Amino acid sequence: MKYIGVDIGGTNIKMGLVDLDGSDPVIMARSSFPFDHMSCADLCKAIKEHSEIMAADAGLRIDDISGIGLSVPGSIDREGENILHSYNMGYHNVPIRAELQKLFPGKKISMANDANAAAFAELYAGSLKGCRNALLLTIGTGLGSGLILDGKVFNGGQGRGCELGHMTFKVGGIQCNCGQSGCMDVYLSATRIARDGRELLGEEYADAKAVLDLSRSGDPTAKMIMDSYLDDLSTAIAALCATFDPERIALGGGFSAAGDALYVPLNKLVAQKNFHRIAYDIVPARFLNDAGVLGAAYHVHLT
Amino acid sequence: MKYIGVDIGGTNIKMGLVDLDGSDPVIMARSSFPFDHMSCADLCKAIKEHSEIMAADAGLRIDDISGIGLSVPGSIDREGENILHSYNMGYHNVPIRAELQKLFPGKKISMANDANAAAFAELYAGSLKGCRNALLLTIGTGLGSGLILDGKVFNGGQGRGCELGHMTFKVGGIQCNCGQSGCMDVYLSATRIARDGRELLGEEYADAKAVLDLSRSGDPTAKMIMDSYLDDLSTAIAALCATFDPERIALGGGFSAAGDALYVPLNKLVAQKNFHRIAYDIVPARFLNDAGVLGAAYHVHLT
Repeated sequence: MKYIGVDIGGTNIKMGLVDLDGSDPVIMARSSFPFDHMSCADLCKAIKEHSEIMAADAGLRIDDISGIGLSVPGSIDREGENILHSYNMGYHNVPIRAELQKLFPGKKISMANDANAAAFAELYAGSLKGCRNALLLTIGTGLGSGLILDGKVFNGGQGRGCELGHMTFKVGGIQCNCGQSGCMDVYLSATRIARDGRELLGEEYADAKAVLDLSRSGDPTAKMIMDSYLDDLSTAIAALCATFDPERIALGGGFSAAGDALYVPLNKLVAQKNFHRIAYDIVPARFLNDAGVLGAAYHVHLT
Repeated sequence: MKYIGVDIGGTNIKMGLVDLDGSDPVIMARSSFPFDHMSCADLCKAIKEHSEIMAADAGLRIDDISGIGLSVPGSIDREGENILHSYNMGYHNVPIRAELQKLFPGKKISMANDANAAAFAELYAGSLKGCRNALLLTIGTGLGSGLILDGKVFNGGQGRGCELGHMTFKVGGIQCNCGQSGCMDVYLSATRIARDGRELLGEEYADAKAVLDLSRSGDPTAKMIMDSYLDDLSTAIAALCATFDPERIALGGGFSAAGDALYVPLNKLVAQKNFHRIAYDIVPARFLNDAGVLGAAYHVHLT
C-alpha cells in the first residue's frame, strides 16, 4: 500500500510518497516546501498540491494512495483530530485532520507527534525492528523521545505524549523553554553543545557539528565540551535504563551519525553507570532525514 | 481462592492468609517472625511452619491454600526462580522458589519485587483500582516505584525491574547506595527528611515523622525542611508526569498517611510544574503495612 508521509518542521515541510508493500519501505517520490506561518487551510492546500505532484512523478493517481500521515512537532489530542500545541508551527487547537479530510475525501488521515513518528519508522523498519521494549532519543534542537513498550509506541498514559526530554535532570539547573528548569532537553540536546561552543570557543562554534569536528581535530577545549556532554548523556541514558531496562536504545537526529567516536565511549559509560550494571545496546537510528516521512506513513498504515 | 502472602523485610517477615474471593481482599490470619540473616532453607522452613499456624488459625488445611506469593526487597530473575540481589536480605543468586516448592509440593509459588507487589495490591484492590496507567511511589528508607502501564505492572523491558528511584534527579548530587549520585532515591525518600532533620535540628529529629510533627507545630526550621522536600517531590512527580501522563499517582510508605498537609500543596505544586500544565490526581495508597502481604497474594493469584 502507498501512503503520503508529511514531515512538518518549523520552517520546512518534507513530503514523501511511500510504498510499504516490501520488506523495506520505498520512497517513490519526494517533495518539499517552506513553512512560513501558513494558515491551516493554506497548509492543507499545499499538502494536496504536492501530493498530486508526487503521485504524477511516481506514475500514480491520488486514488492509488491509501492514506496521508502527518508528523507534527507538537502535541495532538487523543482523538487525533487537533494539533493541541505546536510552538514551532504557531498552531494551538487547530483542527487540521478535518480540514485535510475535506481535500482528501474518504482517505485515511492520521497524525503523530514527530518523535513518535520517528519511533514508528525505527520500530517497523529501522534500528529498533523486532524490539518489544526500546527507546529512541532524537538529539536536535531539543531532546525528542519515542518510547516503545510492549511492541507499541507509548504516547503517555492519558494520550498526551511521552516527553522524556522534560524530565528533570538537574534540579535548579538551566531554564528550559517548557517553563521548568534543569530538563534533560536543556542538557542533552545538540543545542547544549552549541551553547557551550559559543561560550568557550566563540560564535563560529555555536554549532554542535562544528564543535564535534574541532574536537576530532584534537582541540582540547572542544574535546572537553564533548566529554562533558557525553558524561551527561550517558548519565541520563543510564537513568532511563534503570526505569525502562530497554532491549535497545537508538539515537536519532543529525548528531546520531557521529560514528564510533560517539557510540564506543557512550556504550562504555552507560554500562558503568546504569543501576543494573549491564551493557545496553546503544546504536544510531537508521533513518535520519527520512524518519518523519516514513514514520508518518507507517502511522497512517497501522492506525 | 486463598493464598499465603509473605512480605519479606530486612529485619522482619510478615505473613498473611488472604482470601481473594470477595470484591475486597480479606486477611484471615496473620503471622510474623524476625529475619536475622537466615539461610534460604531456614527461611523456607519458617514460612512453611507459619503457613500451617495461620491455616489452623483460620480453620483451614494447607490443602485449602492455592499458592504462596513472596514480596522481596530486591531483584528477581525473569523466570521468577531466583532472588538475584537483595542487599537487605544479604541474598545473591538464591534459588528460593525451588527450595520453597519442596515444602509446598504442587502449589503455585511466585515472587515479586516489593514495590511491584505493592502496586499489584493498589491496582487490584486499592487506590489505583480501575487505572490503566498509574504510578505508585513508596516513600520509605528509599524511593520504591510500581509503574502500571496498559493495566499491567511494568517490570522493565527485559524484566530487571523498574527503578524510578534510581533516575538521576540532580547530576553531581549526593551519593546514592546504588553507586551513582543524585538519584531520586536520595532526594525523595523519608531518609532525606531524616537527614535534613539531623543536620538542622539535631539527632532527635533524625526521623521523618518527628520532623513532620515538629513542622506542624509551627517550627520554622522543620517547616523549611518540609517545604524544601515538597518542592523536590513535586518537581520529580511533575517530571514523571511529562513521561508517563498517568491517570493517578499513589504514595505509599508510612509518610503517605500525612493527610491534607501533604496532598493539598503537593497536588497544587505538581499542577504548576508539569509539562502538560494540568492537574494530576495524587492520592495516598490504600494499603500501608499490608501492601506487601496483599500484593504477594495477588501476584501469585494472577501469575
